[in-house]
Amino acid sequence: MISIRDVAKLAGVSPATVSRVMNGTANVDEVKKQRVQQVIQETGFKPNEAARTLYKKSAHLIGVIVPNIENPFFNEMAKAIEGEAYERGYRLTLCSSNDNLEKEKNSIELLGRMNADGIILLTNEEEIFDQIADARIPVVVLDRAVRHKNEVASIISDNYEGGRMGMEHMLDAGCRNIVAMRGPQNLSSGRDRYKGYLDICREKHVKVQFVDCLYDYEDGLRSTEQILREYPDADGIIAANDMAAISAYKILTRHGKRVPEDIQLIGFDNIIMSRLMTPELTTIAQPITEMGSKAAQILIDHIEGKEVPQKNIFEVKLIQRETTRNKVTKA
Amino acid sequence: MISIRDVAKLAGVSPATVSRVMNGTANVDEVKKQRVQQVIQETGFKPNEAARTLYKKSAHLIGVIVPNIENPFFNEMAKAIEGEAYERGYRLTLCSSNDNLEKEKNSIELLGRMNADGIILLTNEEEIFDQIADARIPVVVLDRAVRHKNEVASIISDNYEGGRMGMEHMLDAGCRNIVAMRGPQNLSSGRDRYKGYLDICREKHVKVQFVDCLYDYEDGLRSTEQILREYPDADGIIAANDMAAISAYKILTRHGKRVPEDIQLIGFDNIIMSRLMTPELTTIAQPITEMGSKAAQILIDHIEGKEVPQKNIFEVKLIQRETTRNKVTKA
Repeated sequence: MISIRDVAKLAGVSPATVSRVMNGTANVDEVKKQRVQQVIQETGFKPNEAARTLYKKSAHLIGVIVPNIENPFFNEMAKAIEGEAYERGYRLTLCSSNDNLEKEKNSIELLGRMNADGIILLTNEEEIFDQIADARIPVVVLDRAVRHKNEVASIISDNYEGGRMGMEHMLDAGCRNIVAMRGPQNLSSGRDRYKGYLDICREKHVKVQFVDCLYDYEDGLRSTEQILREYPDADGIIAANDMAAISAYKILTRHGKRVPEDIQLIGFDNIIMSRLMTPELTTIAQPITEMGSKAAQILIDHIEGKEVPQKNIFEVKLIQRETTRNKVTKA
Repeated sequence: MISIRDVAKLAGVSPATVSRVMNGTANVDEVKKQRVQQVIQETGFKPNEAARTLYKKSAHLIGVIVPNIENPFFNEMAKAIEGEAYERGYRLTLCSSNDNLEKEKNSIELLGRMNADGIILLTNEEEIFDQIADARIPVVVLDRAVRHKNEVASIISDNYEGGRMGMEHMLDAGCRNIVAMRGPQNLSSGRDRYKGYLDICREKHVKVQFVDCLYDYEDGLRSTEQILREYPDADGIIAANDMAAISAYKILTRHGKRVPEDIQLIGFDNIIMSRLMTPELTTIAQPITEMGSKAAQILIDHIEGKEVPQKNIFEVKLIQRETTRNKVTKA
């Protein structure tokens, strides 16, 4: 079996240089780097974990950066990440950015100084990716596509299909005047869900009706009020996500509308709260736990020198509960 | 001003030994230790932060051990801890034990190896405290009293007063057949809340009626079913906490009971979900954010050599929302 020392000898560099090229932890002269990479390719060298550890001082630490630790979607994901990381002997450091770019930057810098092995990133700040590229720490991104060189993989769910499913279910349930809350259009999840909704409208010749809505409770309240003003005869609401659906239910109740008798309601995510609430929320489920586990698994595989799939798309599914009616069968 | 070197000279030991005595980071010969402590006391020596950092390799890292990252009460607290720690330049490592003692032990060992400066502990496992005593890391405990030598302070809310308030409010709201869910009696919070309830029963000559209930959603479902079986004429339920109240509302609705018309309901904690749900939950509020901030503040003050108050009890208050009626005034 080829060892790191063999690779070093063949490339005419020190084993430490080979290690640096493999880990990308420090600058290596471009000529040496290419020579090492060529030898690795020619020999089919695969470092084992012990050998890597010998050359890389691992802190066995993963940084998880979430926009808001209070948001149940991120919490549930963080729990899954933690479970998987623990199994593999890694610790988590959780950074809640509260959508504060300065704080995210500081967190990343600190993670670098703590010698973190990798980062799992849930953020909507584009700027932060430059910062991460500088930190030279591998990153797995959740809920958006890979765009930068440090990003080893992305984990997303099939938001487009989810958008289609939600709209199809509302039609099946008998709604004839559906309004969609269109999620944030600077996020791929918001764009893809809305695209799915639009395509069903086109295919089934249904009028497009929407209001814009962020993924949070407060904006869910506001946009439901807007729907009731602009579309007073609506008999179905497709919420931007479960949090917005929880808000919608509250506003509808305050206006004396019964769910699902007067107006039907569907969410997106399947956060735990969607089944705790009464009535229980019909929703398009993302496999939150599986996605979180997968993020940790892929990052750790990468840290330990294994090949990882760059694109990881998870299927979504309809979970019908109490806020929509069963499929209406035509007589 | 007295320096650590002066103390060392007076005690006839090295500055490093003085540092070890102060930080409790390693074993020091008992005789030397006593000499150092005597000199510190006699000279009134107070190390400044810079001096401490010189002798103590701080990782600026705090471990937070929570029973379950998914529980909103702990989440909201963790968010507050994170905010305060970030302000003071400390990072958090979050360990979710899932009530698994083995995992808690491993987490503490790992925190020791990572050179963590302190631990904020939310756990119900008694055994874990021995482990922490061995780790020689300062600990701030949330939601229970200080019992071990490593425990520098405890943060709790006035659960007894909360128990009284809840029962008083139910009587004021016109309930005449109240059932209490008695929380876990191995936890001080559960015991103190129940004691408060009992004292009001005695003072107002009201019959004591209770069922046992854990602090979680599943057991809340079960115990509400038990209440409906054993006390079919109940017109008020004092839930063990907000999660159990959310379960109670679901079960009551399933049984066709209207809240608050047929039966009134009060929770405990004031987790965010208590105001997201519809109807919004009347509850006894613990100042969760303040408690979390305080825990971080006290731990960091201690790490940085400041005096900290050992006992920190926070006031609770009634937040009346939609699941109870206004005070009934007698004609």
